[in-house]
Amino acid sequence: MKAEIIAVGTELLLGQVVNTNATFISEELASLGFEIYYQTVVGDNTQRLEKLLDLADGRSELIILCGGLGPTDDDLTRDVVAAHVGESLETDKQAMTKISRYMTKIGREMTENNRRQALTISGGKVVKNPRGLAIGTFYQGDETAYLLLPGPPSELIPMFHEEVVPLLTQLLPQKEVLTSRVLRFYGIGESRLVTVLKDLIDTQSNPTIAPYAKENEVTLRLTAKTDDKCLADKLLSTMEETIMSRVGTFFYGYGETNSLMAETVKLLKETNKTVTSAESLTAGLFQSLLGDVAGASVVYPGGVVTYATKVKSQLLGIPLDKLEENGVISQFCAENMAKQIGKQLETDYAVSFTGVAGPDSLEDQEPGTVWLGIYSRKEGTRAEKFMFNGNRNQVRHHAVMRGTDLLRRQILKETEK
Amino acid sequence: MKAEIIAVGTELLLGQVVNTNATFISEELASLGFEIYYQTVVGDNTQRLEKLLDLADGRSELIILCGGLGPTDDDLTRDVVAAHVGESLETDKQAMTKISRYMTKIGREMTENNRRQALTISGGKVVKNPRGLAIGTFYQGDETAYLLLPGPPSELIPMFHEEVVPLLTQLLPQKEVLTSRVLRFYGIGESRLVTVLKDLIDTQSNPTIAPYAKENEVTLRLTAKTDDKCLADKLLSTMEETIMSRVGTFFYGYGETNSLMAETVKLLKETNKTVTSAESLTAGLFQSLLGDVAGASVVYPGGVVTYATKVKSQLLGIPLDKLEENGVISQFCAENMAKQIGKQLETDYAVSFTGVAGPDSLEDQEPGTVWLGIYSRKEGTRAEKFMFNGNRNQVRHHAVMRGTDLLRRQILKETEK
Repeated sequence: MKAEIIAVGTELLLGQVVNTNATFISEELASLGFEIYYQTVVGDNTQRLEKLLDLADGRSELIILCGGLGPTDDDLTRDVVAAHVGESLETDKQAMTKISRYMTKIGREMTENNRRQALTISGGKVVKNPRGLAIGTFYQGDETAYLLLPGPPSELIPMFHEEVVPLLTQLLPQKEVLTSRVLRFYGIGESRLVTVLKDLIDTQSNPTIAPYAKENEVTLRLTAKTDDKCLADKLLSTMEETIMSRVGTFFYGYGETNSLMAETVKLLKETNKTVTSAESLTAGLFQSLLGDVAGASVVYPGGVVTYATKVKSQLLGIPLDKLEENGVISQFCAENMAKQIGKQLETDYAVSFTGVAGPDSLEDQEPGTVWLGIYSRKEGTRAEKFMFNGNRNQVRHHAVMRGTDLLRRQILKETEK
Repeated sequence: MKAEIIAVGTELLLGQVVNTNATFISEELASLGFEIYYQTVVGDNTQRLEKLLDLADGRSELIILCGGLGPTDDDLTRDVVAAHVGESLETDKQAMTKISRYMTKIGREMTENNRRQALTISGGKVVKNPRGLAIGTFYQGDETAYLLLPGPPSELIPMFHEEVVPLLTQLLPQKEVLTSRVLRFYGIGESRLVTVLKDLIDTQSNPTIAPYAKENEVTLRLTAKTDDKCLADKLLSTMEETIMSRVGTFFYGYGETNSLMAETVKLLKETNKTVTSAESLTAGLFQSLLGDVAGASVVYPGGVVTYATKVKSQLLGIPLDKLEENGVISQFCAENMAKQIGKQLETDYAVSFTGVAGPDSLEDQEPGTVWLGIYSRKEGTRAEKFMFNGNRNQVRHHAVMRGTDLLRRQILKETEK
């Protein structure tokens, strides 16, 4: 069933408020099995909302409007939709009682505007608002259904879960359910992933495959549409297997809100290992992202940021003359940074970062040149050289992601043995 | 001039991504003096985008499209708009060179898809993308102008500030020029700022005053509309003076892309001073933000992250028995962390961070409890206790902002004497 969302409010058009309602409702509708083709924002303006309703009538079977149900004169959604479907407005007694009680409680006089929040469209169904005063309305027209909801997310979200979902489920022909699985990849770009999976993407039907590029990583969302959860899982698993056989080496975890660092911390916890770090160009970014993961203190005691050459010697005990001889953007420096901090803090692993973030070159090496060191208590120390693209902060972020990946692969290698 | 925004992307219709681009662009357009009547989201679908363009042509003079400029086949904005205006696509040589260089640099093979990102509409003007590979296009039709921008906010926002604003300013009737000045405040909430300036905001006309809450800070954008740059500057300065007389103590700098950290690094450079840090709960976040500022190496040699209690002793030489006696969330710990790292690395200042980020309590102190230490070579060491609101990462971010503010005020105090 085709649905669309219309958010009403001039504050949205002025960029004062982010339209999180559209995101929330879209996600809910998709999981119920509706197809959403449009989200629109229109201001508090009768003519433009009327025009938009004419347009939406022709392309959608369900129109969800949010906002414009408050007490002020520019809250005109109710009035415009009622006129559009040729009905009048009527007062819902229960809602009116709730408003009267509220006004008495806060000691304010009831105004004509307050009463507006109890208005509903004749021939429609009241949608109760457990967290606020403005009621919603569901109106089933001949070919199109209209659902009016208040704008504040603190009212709209609970209303949606408690009142709207049961209502909308009845609109759907059968119980078609969407089941999604998100696969996360690091180390492969979006265009290459899409090229490798081109035949699967071109012929996708059920499940569908949606690639999405995030900062330095790519996700694939597989979505199956079935009336049976078991079958959906089977469809998803079969597709996942095919994908993994081609790009499995870049896969690191599942889920919309997961991250490479979170998976790495999980792995450290599971294997009872600890990690530390000595950072130069990244200046604490690796450790800061480590600290972002709740419970990181179990696997990470601390570390150092050795930005200046002298500090690499002061805090890590690397001889200054050796640093000057080899340069700080070198295998020698990366290996020693990792080894020294790992031994000093007695951890199982240590990762080091040294290189040129830019904008200027350093030691005649161009911005983007980075050495990453990995120390393992069990397997010793090594370092790898990389060339990252982008501005200063992109280079630093690339370096942190790659360092996390090296650490994760080192743990996996040691524990799979 | 009437403008509208079309965001292209199925991920938006599925509720996987919040349409922050529409909010950002709306705010920017409003401040430039455009009137925005619609924001629409449409999926990666040729037919529906075509229909929407027909509709938008009839109601807007400027259509800004964002998203759908990436390398994959479902990135179709370029193709649809070119067909809509009756032009072909052509490769921008400069963009193509950039893509080739990038692919060579990262050692990946160039695919046909990668090349798509260098395509622009014939007869249009290329809009450079300093932070990514996909270029934008500006195309002036007979009655409508089209602006195509990439979807990732990390690319779109800098493109807008650097490339788009000058372009759009030319579209506006020439005689009236908008001049803006952005004032940045830390340490005062948006609602308090707005309350203190209520009379000015209620009666604003020229210049206008737009408050905007960012993460832990507030900005005020003053915009004067005149045909004379000199007069505009005068109007802005008069308004700024009035504002400063009320909330000047919270003001730290000017500009849309400025930050408290950037201002602090600037101040350190100007006064020839250096800073270091010992971080516990913030785990490198302060130093990482310091490292974000280009040229930070002049004022910052490095520092430590002493997450575990033992490491506070190992790396900073604070006696373990004293730490256990006082607890790590204490004035003692904060003062010693700051003093020890400052003396060890021989800097002029040092900032320390210790506290409970959450979600669990620590040493019977609830999440949000933070001690910040400030060491000054000239004036000695002190520590202050704070209680910050929010989840784990909000507490860490609050702590870093407040620590930066304490440092900035300490430098100002010493240099103004």
